[in-house]
Amino acid sequence: MRLAGVLLPGDDAVRVARLSGDEVVVLAEVGEFWADARGCLTREGSAVPADSVRFVPPVPASARVICVGLNYRAHAAEGSFEVPEHPTLFGRWTASLSVGDVPVSVPSGEAGLDWEGEVAAYVAEPVRDADPDAALAAVLGYSTFNDLTARRAQKLTSQWTLGKNADRSGPMGPIVTADEVGDLRDGLRVRTRVNGTVVQDGDTRDMIFPVGEVLSLISRTLTLNPGDVIATGTPDGVGYVRTPPWLLGPGDVVEVEIDRLGTLRTPIV
Amino acid sequence: MRLAGVLLPGDDAVRVARLSGDEVVVLAEVGEFWADARGCLTREGSAVPADSVRFVPPVPASARVICVGLNYRAHAAEGSFEVPEHPTLFGRWTASLSVGDVPVSVPSGEAGLDWEGEVAAYVAEPVRDADPDAALAAVLGYSTFNDLTARRAQKLTSQWTLGKNADRSGPMGPIVTADEVGDLRDGLRVRTRVNGTVVQDGDTRDMIFPVGEVLSLISRTLTLNPGDVIATGTPDGVGYVRTPPWLLGPGDVVEVEIDRLGTLRTPIV
Repeated sequence: MRLAGVLLPGDDAVRVARLSGDEVVVLAEVGEFWADARGCLTREGSAVPADSVRFVPPVPASARVICVGLNYRAHAAEGSFEVPEHPTLFGRWTASLSVGDVPVSVPSGEAGLDWEGEVAAYVAEPVRDADPDAALAAVLGYSTFNDLTARRAQKLTSQWTLGKNADRSGPMGPIVTADEVGDLRDGLRVRTRVNGTVVQDGDTRDMIFPVGEVLSLISRTLTLNPGDVIATGTPDGVGYVRTPPWLLGPGDVVEVEIDRLGTLRTPIV
Repeated sequence: MRLAGVLLPGDDAVRVARLSGDEVVVLAEVGEFWADARGCLTREGSAVPADSVRFVPPVPASARVICVGLNYRAHAAEGSFEVPEHPTLFGRWTASLSVGDVPVSVPSGEAGLDWEGEVAAYVAEPVRDADPDAALAAVLGYSTFNDLTARRAQKLTSQWTLGKNADRSGPMGPIVTADEVGDLRDGLRVRTRVNGTVVQDGDTRDMIFPVGEVLSLISRTLTLNPGDVIATGTPDGVGYVRTPPWLLGPGDVVEVEIDRLGTLRTPIV
């Protein structure tokens, strides 16, 4: 099943809907959905034409987007980082999230935005002091994600937060439920293309820290809530480490394509 | 004027209320409040007994809590950090926020929690690409804040996010409107006490980066929204750098007292 957030015409309540051809089948208001996500998946719902709704992120405003910074060896190496002993976690606020096909602008003072194609995982139930298997079982599904980065702001100090939260810089694709995705450790190909040229071509089997381990570690410090999102890190091939650096500017189109999750397209303006 | 978030009996909508002796005067639902904060301050509102409500953070679930990591020279020095050239910014999600007198528990795997008494500033209007004076003019008011920190998790990797987001680890006092506070550069004394013993005694005139400068810098990368919060950093005297280290454990009570803002009390359990 594929899930998206939608706004119905003339209504500002975010709803979670199932995608079904040219229709979306509205299941629940977003807060109600995440209060019982698995239960809501079995609802019949009400169908409306897909072209009558506006797509938005399918998570509550309170959701934490917890990103793993260096989760592929080759990406750590290209940035001259050591392979880390623990997952390097930083945060995005939902205010920076967006969806596919929504234009993203380059913040003032940046030479451009950098791409980071990755898989995002969505938490269905509260997770607290959980072991990796229990934590992984709490994942509802996965989506494409582009962790578009303002490198100047990211590298201004030791903390990356600012550069990871530019307006609309976190587009996410529809959630595909875990039963249709399988285990990331078995491998999904992650490709990023800029204006059609492949710039990243990785595989989730090369992740240093699997999703269950990341969730388990986080759950020892804070209780993960339904609707929280883990961005699982990007493979090698980002732009800022190239010679010369290659960053996205107005007119560019970046796409993240991941096996079983689909393609997420973002125009830069 | 002093403002707090409240839940009325039998209702789960957060409202913003003015404090008035033994009463709270409800002004608006939290989203409606921040859509026009200055307008809502002039409302008559409806009074209810303070002991009939539950106090909660007065910000929307979507609010960003942007914390300045090293904003007092003596605190940077005690942690063996260089005096930074730019504000070191990290994030909290609203899921970690709380209010005074709410017990906070020590996460598993931590020897305790560390205190960080500080002033928080609240943004009233959107701020984008603003200069420091314009950005400062967008501040509605200030509150006490305790940036309670899980040091083990904070220091696990280069990024501090995890250790700054333990459950209920960000208690905030009532917002005092800027007209009653004045300019932080003129000096407010910031004291933290543990079980009555003063452990931090600083002054906001020693801040390296004034609030307007911090907001201005942030606004070059992302648009600050009404309800966003800036935690302005803590003076020296935190626990983990002491010999031996001193961390908060069950039974301890920590208080942050700031001129004109009041006292924020937090029991550790």
